[in-house]
Amino acid sequence: MGVSDVFAVSGALEVVLEGVAGKGVMAVVYGSTRTSTIPGISIAGPSPEATLYTPTLDIEYLVAGRPLTLDVVPVSPEGVPTPAVITRAVARAFNIPLLPVDAGSWTEARVPHAKLPSRVTGGRIDVEPGLPSGASERLFREAYMLGSSLARGLDWIAVGESIPGGTTVAAAVMEALGYRAADLVSSSGKDNPRELKKRVVAQALSRLRECGARDVLEIVDCVGDPVHVSIAGLAVGAREAGAFVILAGGTQMGAVLAILSRLGMLDPRSTAVATTKWIALDRGSSIRGIVESIAPGLTVAAAGFSLEGSRYRGLRMYEEGYAKEGVGAGGSLVISLLRGAGVREILEAVESEYGRLLGG
Amino acid sequence: MGVSDVFAVSGALEVVLEGVAGKGVMAVVYGSTRTSTIPGISIAGPSPEATLYTPTLDIEYLVAGRPLTLDVVPVSPEGVPTPAVITRAVARAFNIPLLPVDAGSWTEARVPHAKLPSRVTGGRIDVEPGLPSGASERLFREAYMLGSSLARGLDWIAVGESIPGGTTVAAAVMEALGYRAADLVSSSGKDNPRELKKRVVAQALSRLRECGARDVLEIVDCVGDPVHVSIAGLAVGAREAGAFVILAGGTQMGAVLAILSRLGMLDPRSTAVATTKWIALDRGSSIRGIVESIAPGLTVAAAGFSLEGSRYRGLRMYEEGYAKEGVGAGGSLVISLLRGAGVREILEAVESEYGRLLGG
Repeated sequence: MGVSDVFAVSGALEVVLEGVAGKGVMAVVYGSTRTSTIPGISIAGPSPEATLYTPTLDIEYLVAGRPLTLDVVPVSPEGVPTPAVITRAVARAFNIPLLPVDAGSWTEARVPHAKLPSRVTGGRIDVEPGLPSGASERLFREAYMLGSSLARGLDWIAVGESIPGGTTVAAAVMEALGYRAADLVSSSGKDNPRELKKRVVAQALSRLRECGARDVLEIVDCVGDPVHVSIAGLAVGAREAGAFVILAGGTQMGAVLAILSRLGMLDPRSTAVATTKWIALDRGSSIRGIVESIAPGLTVAAAGFSLEGSRYRGLRMYEEGYAKEGVGAGGSLVISLLRGAGVREILEAVESEYGRLLGG
Repeated sequence: MGVSDVFAVSGALEVVLEGVAGKGVMAVVYGSTRTSTIPGISIAGPSPEATLYTPTLDIEYLVAGRPLTLDVVPVSPEGVPTPAVITRAVARAFNIPLLPVDAGSWTEARVPHAKLPSRVTGGRIDVEPGLPSGASERLFREAYMLGSSLARGLDWIAVGESIPGGTTVAAAVMEALGYRAADLVSSSGKDNPRELKKRVVAQALSRLRECGARDVLEIVDCVGDPVHVSIAGLAVGAREAGAFVILAGGTQMGAVLAILSRLGMLDPRSTAVATTKWIALDRGSSIRGIVESIAPGLTVAAAGFSLEGSRYRGLRMYEEGYAKEGVGAGGSLVISLLRGAGVREILEAVESEYGRLLGG
């Protein structure tokens, strides 16, 4: 139980174990990119356009227990609940402080949230700039300030994400920064729409020349989104304030690592990735391949928490490859396991929350 | 040094000493009320209208090191620096995590901040409702959510305030809720404009009948402001999540206690007030009188930190009765002293920050 249920995909588990000792806060940086409206790219919503609302609904559910902007249950058309069900259940049962951070929502969340003043919804990277000129620099700087003032005196800061289309944009950012990624990122669907993603990434990369990007953050303006660069800024601010940084997410966190690495601001001793086993063991993607090429030696910890034995079909679908990760789910699992929570206790908390959500 | 430099104005110091052990976050809830534009009510700005900008400028300075919305130095016309100089210096030197919370700013801060969705600038309570109908209930609920999700797993939450005109509104709220207060609240000026405040409070109270307020939160809608009720909600959420709550402010915190008390949500064992000695020893006001009538037995701790020996005239003016408290200054002093910081170290940090601010 507990610690023994966390495994290292790469690096050394001890780094994370020491890192999450003490007290910290989990931030969830959220926003939208119109890239998610390309038909087939994201299943994180009932229609391509509806994916723009998903981060706001996820955050409202996370904080208030139900979406407020739309009266919906945060479950995909196929019946798979948002990974925020895991985050909410685990954070409440095992005492993880949460702070949502709006980096570019489509519509403002009706629950309290931290806000980056320059927050902006991203563009469709196959046909237009990912962000307005200069936005990456502003978001990085503002998120740095937030990380720096919030983390001072805390032991760790975890940072999750919610951005449909994020893996596609992450692949474009990593490739644009010189890392192989287009065939390594994961998907929230059971079947990864790899050819479509590759086409979108190729179109984004073909726009790099017209963007005239001269540095890392201008490259993110060209092919990125508001979330990854904000997580990067928050991570640097938190680390400089003395906190250990846990990137609580899947292959998307490769884009964060790539930005940090190319900025010369990556420190593998005080940074780790924490994710789910559905990402760690996914055959359709390789978080290990991504991290080893960008940040050799950096620890990727995965939660050996399974939903196979759940009494709910919707939760068991995670074992078939649906959803996999998001909204800090993997990070919340890793943190609670490392603090000694048992997988059975966690399953009870998640099932109880999911049951409540279904009104059961 | 350290602990011995904190004294109890009422209650028992041990409560606070235990309360601030471990890790926590200081929130600073800020907003404006048009009450501050009544000539003579507030000196927290170069003109009555300019006081509306002060909370935003304070928060920008606190986070970014300088005001951004206006290119000014946060020093009063008489040369007295904002108490945020103390908060910023102490938080950075002694590792206190900070999170600004916008409950109703006049103009949005250009630094990252948490935001209550229903934030609203307050009205001039002598002639109009303090808040739109229902706003108090919404702000209380939203701040409750923020406190509850942020504090879960933390040991303490401190809550400071920034709202010019706040002591006048606080007096109206306390009186409307049945407590004597109009002649007990303090002032940020050297000379407390007591007769003017009493007149404004009397005018606000005379509007109570036309408001038709039927409960505590409707009374706050009638004669209150966005900040006190939000602090009350945040406090309840944080306490229910298991954190000790430090109300980091002066006599205004009486309004928070009055709201909590009349809602039946005040718990003196897990709540305390922490303030400066300039409030605790002020002859023109009585925080002790306020707290003893509303919350008998509740601990009020004061920082025995003096600026008498400062090499800066602007800082020494605190000893003459200027500014006194605000933006969590007293709370940050009490917390750092209880953790063992010495008054000399603190003075050095504050002088160094003030020197930087002056460009010296």
